[in-house]
Amino acid sequence: MKAVVYKGPKDIAVEQRPDPTVQSPLDAIIKITTTNICGSDLHMYEGRTSVEEGKILGHENMGVVEEVGSGVGRIKVGDRVSVPFNIACGTCRNCTGGWTSFCLRTNPKEGMDGAAYGYADMGPYDGGQAEFLRIPYADFNLLHLPQGTEHETDFTMLSDIFPTGFHGAVLAEVGIGDRVAVYGAGPVGLMAAHSAFLLGASQVFVVDKVPDRLELAQAYGATAIDFSQGDPIEQIMDATDGNGVDCGVEAVGYQAHDATGEEHPELVLDGLVNVVRAAGAIGVVGVYPPADPGASNEGAKEGRIAWQYGTFFTKGQRMRTGQAPVKRYNRQLRDLIITGVAKPGKIVSHEVGLDEAVDAYDKFDCRVDGYTKVLLHP
Amino acid sequence: MKAVVYKGPKDIAVEQRPDPTVQSPLDAIIKITTTNICGSDLHMYEGRTSVEEGKILGHENMGVVEEVGSGVGRIKVGDRVSVPFNIACGTCRNCTGGWTSFCLRTNPKEGMDGAAYGYADMGPYDGGQAEFLRIPYADFNLLHLPQGTEHETDFTMLSDIFPTGFHGAVLAEVGIGDRVAVYGAGPVGLMAAHSAFLLGASQVFVVDKVPDRLELAQAYGATAIDFSQGDPIEQIMDATDGNGVDCGVEAVGYQAHDATGEEHPELVLDGLVNVVRAAGAIGVVGVYPPADPGASNEGAKEGRIAWQYGTFFTKGQRMRTGQAPVKRYNRQLRDLIITGVAKPGKIVSHEVGLDEAVDAYDKFDCRVDGYTKVLLHP
Amino acid sequence: MKAVVYKGPKDIAVEQRPDPTVQSPLDAIIKITTTNICGSDLHMYEGRTSVEEGKILGHENMGVVEEVGSGVGRIKVGDRVSVPFNIACGTCRNCTGGWTSFCLRTNPKEGMDGAAYGYADMGPYDGGQAEFLRIPYADFNLLHLPQGTEHETDFTMLSDIFPTGFHGAVLAEVGIGDRVAVYGAGPVGLMAAHSAFLLGASQVFVVDKVPDRLELAQAYGATAIDFSQGDPIEQIMDATDGNGVDCGVEAVGYQAHDATGEEHPELVLDGLVNVVRAAGAIGVVGVYPPADPGASNEGAKEGRIAWQYGTFFTKGQRMRTGQAPVKRYNRQLRDLIITGVAKPGKIVSHEVGLDEAVDAYDKFDCRVDGYTKVLLHP
Amino acid sequence: MKAVVYKGPKDIAVEQRPDPTVQSPLDAIIKITTTNICGSDLHMYEGRTSVEEGKILGHENMGVVEEVGSGVGRIKVGDRVSVPFNIACGTCRNCTGGWTSFCLRTNPKEGMDGAAYGYADMGPYDGGQAEFLRIPYADFNLLHLPQGTEHETDFTMLSDIFPTGFHGAVLAEVGIGDRVAVYGAGPVGLMAAHSAFLLGASQVFVVDKVPDRLELAQAYGATAIDFSQGDPIEQIMDATDGNGVDCGVEAVGYQAHDATGEEHPELVLDGLVNVVRAAGAIGVVGVYPPADPGASNEGAKEGRIAWQYGTFFTKGQRMRTGQAPVKRYNRQLRDLIITGVAKPGKIVSHEVGLDEAVDAYDKFDCRVDGYTKVLLHP
Repeated sequence: MKAVVYKGPKDIAVEQRPDPTVQSPLDAIIKITTTNICGSDLHMYEGRTSVEEGKILGHENMGVVEEVGSGVGRIKVGDRVSVPFNIACGTCRNCTGGWTSFCLRTNPKEGMDGAAYGYADMGPYDGGQAEFLRIPYADFNLLHLPQGTEHETDFTMLSDIFPTGFHGAVLAEVGIGDRVAVYGAGPVGLMAAHSAFLLGASQVFVVDKVPDRLELAQAYGATAIDFSQGDPIEQIMDATDGNGVDCGVEAVGYQAHDATGEEHPELVLDGLVNVVRAAGAIGVVGVYPPADPGASNEGAKEGRIAWQYGTFFTKGQRMRTGQAPVKRYNRQLRDLIITGVAKPGKIVSHEVGLDEAVDAYDKFDCRVDGYTKVLLHP
Repeated sequence: MKAVVYKGPKDIAVEQRPDPTVQSPLDAIIKITTTNICGSDLHMYEGRTSVEEGKILGHENMGVVEEVGSGVGRIKVGDRVSVPFNIACGTCRNCTGGWTSFCLRTNPKEGMDGAAYGYADMGPYDGGQAEFLRIPYADFNLLHLPQGTEHETDFTMLSDIFPTGFHGAVLAEVGIGDRVAVYGAGPVGLMAAHSAFLLGASQVFVVDKVPDRLELAQAYGATAIDFSQGDPIEQIMDATDGNGVDCGVEAVGYQAHDATGEEHPELVLDGLVNVVRAAGAIGVVGVYPPADPGASNEGAKEGRIAWQYGTFFTKGQRMRTGQAPVKRYNRQLRDLIITGVAKPGKIVSHEVGLDEAVDAYDKFDCRVDGYTKVLLHP
Repeated sequence: MKAVVYKGPKDIAVEQRPDPTVQSPLDAIIKITTTNICGSDLHMYEGRTSVEEGKILGHENMGVVEEVGSGVGRIKVGDRVSVPFNIACGTCRNCTGGWTSFCLRTNPKEGMDGAAYGYADMGPYDGGQAEFLRIPYADFNLLHLPQGTEHETDFTMLSDIFPTGFHGAVLAEVGIGDRVAVYGAGPVGLMAAHSAFLLGASQVFVVDKVPDRLELAQAYGATAIDFSQGDPIEQIMDATDGNGVDCGVEAVGYQAHDATGEEHPELVLDGLVNVVRAAGAIGVVGVYPPADPGASNEGAKEGRIAWQYGTFFTKGQRMRTGQAPVKRYNRQLRDLIITGVAKPGKIVSHEVGLDEAVDAYDKFDCRVDGYTKVLLHP
Repeated sequence: MKAVVYKGPKDIAVEQRPDPTVQSPLDAIIKITTTNICGSDLHMYEGRTSVEEGKILGHENMGVVEEVGSGVGRIKVGDRVSVPFNIACGTCRNCTGGWTSFCLRTNPKEGMDGAAYGYADMGPYDGGQAEFLRIPYADFNLLHLPQGTEHETDFTMLSDIFPTGFHGAVLAEVGIGDRVAVYGAGPVGLMAAHSAFLLGASQVFVVDKVPDRLELAQAYGATAIDFSQGDPIEQIMDATDGNGVDCGVEAVGYQAHDATGEEHPELVLDGLVNVVRAAGAIGVVGVYPPADPGASNEGAKEGRIAWQYGTFFTKGQRMRTGQAPVKRYNRQLRDLIITGVAKPGKIVSHEVGLDEAVDAYDKFDCRVDGYTKVLLHP
């Protein structure tokens, strides 16, 4: 089969690779119909991770079941399915508690909970930017979709980006009538804004400086806060009569930049602590790694981010973090897509064939031509 | 009346002051029967705060109602009551939401939510280390106790220390069967350990180095971890087969010291991030101020604590913080005292008259003669 | 002032009555701008209750503050406010726990928790179908609205009907992606359907037989189930591939009628038990009284409704019930009205002056001329 | 192997049967070390169910893993394990939502969610009152116990009775400081009382009339209410100053008897509605079947129990019901046994060999010789 293979920094190739096969009674093989390039794929593409050369990339996958192992019963050949990016065993303590993002069994690396397809440090699993993909623990992991091809663009958001944005809103405890601040209008931030409204928010502020993204935020009903036009904290406080928001979502991560383009890993956390009310909640889905050798200061190299923790405590705020357990939300979000209540596919900017992956990575990495979210169709 | 008055750093006096009077239809005046010295009173005593000279100290109060305003109806003269340290209006958004520790109306200071008796920065209210005390919004704030004098030593813990420790356990989401780590075996840490068992914990590790305190922890059923005898993280990991604990409570605050006595504001947060499992929760009731001019590094001076945030995110942990809303818990904890299930009074080391307050502050501050928790009886 | 007074069965009059006055330091007087006739007012109008002759009716009130007592501080003269139908003291155990609908202090009747304006058995309080209304515990009970006259038709739903419908959806635990069945398309059922979508429902079935009401349900995005056209259980099971719904709301009450017009108090509960999935939740806001002397069978006379309880248990379902604690929701719902996310006012069919109240009651009682929801403007 | 086989009403036999074998890659075979007789086994023994002749009984099982299928990885041969009575697939919507008691895949009977070992209507699975037992979906269903033989009497309560009693307390929302009423002092009621204290109750009333059982309740710290000595509602109201309890647990079921021995299926539900406060919660784990052909009135034959529903609504109470999802609680309860906080084994009255099962069933059924809870050791 054809597959997108990591060769080295800024070097990927579409290569011929052996078809995956059933290796355990619990495996399934799916034929990929759509697989997305994620912003986090660019971390690997840019050479900022320890991902192995030769690995097939791609953790946002959907398709049709081609073959199942002898212990697979819920999932049948021919089923159309969405594949959560987390690879979860379904029987360990974390999986049965709903924390598939911290599965204790699928990642062989010592002290590392949680696995994923085609990703650095997340276990020895190939990704789905290919014609076929092997799915461990298929009965547990796969989500049924309605047969056919309808809603493909929306459904393909169910493997990662929509549940991840939704998780951000849940971690922030968005509730009925709340005013919410979302930092970051990339795909995850946009999905968090969409999710906040699905959870009953009355108003959602989205902070970014890229006009295209802020327009998409507005298309989801959010209020755009352009931080290149002034301090976003002041803008939000002014728009809320000085009260601030009830809760906030971090969808940027450690590579936060100020309006001048300088990197400040504490910038977004500080912003949220200041705009969120006393006793309010903050959900963090933007990534902060345990170590960041390339950071600008000694603390940040060890993952120590010197944000305004004293203010956070004094305001009695709370913060929840981490990778989304996709399975906790994807069924419900699928049903909202089916009835037309949710429309995550609006953010897709480009759809191309697998053969065009090299070009698509390059353009997405350079953010040219309005590349926001790219789908590959093998 | 006689009252304990702040005169300046390490200078308090028992002085004659006018009796408090009803100033609003919602006020009550109580005659103090017991008022405790809190560890946080020492912050003021030591001159580390901006508390006004002339202020009567004391926020851990109980007594008998002497007089009520014309709008007070639930509380009657002669009622025995416990006084939560938070002064709350009962009608603002935060109070009606259960967050009396962040009342929007009782603290006149701009941008500061929440008030307290006899405390720096918490509004212009005198404290209860005196013969009488004025209680604003008495119907809302006061908790009825059974008439008489029974359980006085236990009930006096209801104004602050027991609900604060309990809040720590709640913020840490202690649930049935959980293993819990509590950092700090001062009064709050001990109450957190006691509370963790009340909430169903199977095992509670308490980290400290003072032998008396660790013995009290053991008296509450906890497992003592003496950090002067070795890295507490290693000790806890060893005792849990390398799994760590389900959740943890911070009951130390920014003035954390390592085994050599050096101050490290990030020390306890780092410890908790490392001993708590992935997807586990941390409750923080130890104080971290928004600014700490005397801190050893530039960040900490601005309340920026450079703890291992990247690890916290990667483990998908969550953290809740802040002063306890005493009213949310004090009725329930009172009922556990009445039926003998809870015994918070075990930690009391000394009971003296109001006249001996100067000596008691001095000895408590020096931690001599086993001063753990001191009660004053006017 | 002019007021709508209950004189006897099917006999009300608009009479001259003394203006209400401040009687406690915690009272306020408001000038009514809008007051609604509620379906439950018709219970009294029809003579089916023990309401006192001479009582001013009306528990759905809003207006402008005219005067406040000396202990009122949060609310000021001139404020535009919504008045929750529950009269709550704000300081008893139930009020501070968020259960203002079961206030322990405002209803003098032995064993009866909870009070209301102008209502049978709910304490000695006059209602607001008048020019002025006295509000006990004003700081606690009143909700601020934006000054002016905007959104009057939507805001007037905040005193009862919108929070009551929302409470039904909350009691049914409506969550993201859920399919929901609402029995009853009267004002409360319509608000429950609207609320279910606000809480993230993917699909809402509304069961009724009145075409106007079913059309309003569809206007809120719901799927109409006309039970005069066939068994509603079958219709819902067919529409859900035999799976049924995740949760259901009862918005009919004990006077449920089948398609032939016969009364069956167990009818709607049976319907919900059958259409809701195993382990699903049911919220009941339709009224079932403790005794109903006019009921058709002996059990029902004692409030014993012989519904399919064995099936309920075997399916492991859960059921929550009771009058809505309006204050728990009205601020949040107000904010959704302000930003245009919620539009409860769509259900209003008629707006008339106070002088036309007699005619309005009569027509509303006969359900002629499309009377769905009537507002009175003094 | 030897096994306890149902032959007909009041007719069981210990017979030779073929050893079970691995039939699916996900199966395990365990060697039984302890298997209990449950009160609900007597329903089948007495001929009141449709259980098939020839079925091996026994759903409360523990033992050591003898063999595993090729798809089993978490569980190893030699592991000591507890077997939840629910047979759950681990991958359907209800299982992944934590509702293993309503598994959608393991019970082939149309419209019936949930399966169990050796039980009427709960699927074609043999029970564990035998030397060996086949466990479907072993990785998901089995709970690891510490190797060896320690705590066998306590651990054997983890398969059903302890989690079921705990579920009752959870369904009743028992929280810190609560006063709780438990109706029924059989094994489940006693476990509910024990669990209520583990969850923080301040006082637990247990209602029964059998002196042995009431003594056991007191041994767990509960207050005994002997309903043969007077109306239990009055006794509880008197003991709570007329306030009643915060929540209640039903651990009796439809075969409730009054003090004279007459059966009244509505008796316990009425009792709970009356002793539980307004806005309080009721948890029901006593069984109410969808149909009961032997009931004394027409309604009850169809599972229609005519309890005081109108009072339930007016008090705004809530009720949760159903079979316990054992897996949701058994790990945590195991850990409480290991550290000595929980002691469920106190209720065991007899331990005998498998060969003595016929005699044990007979005596347990007749409640002679203090038979409360019987363990069989093959």
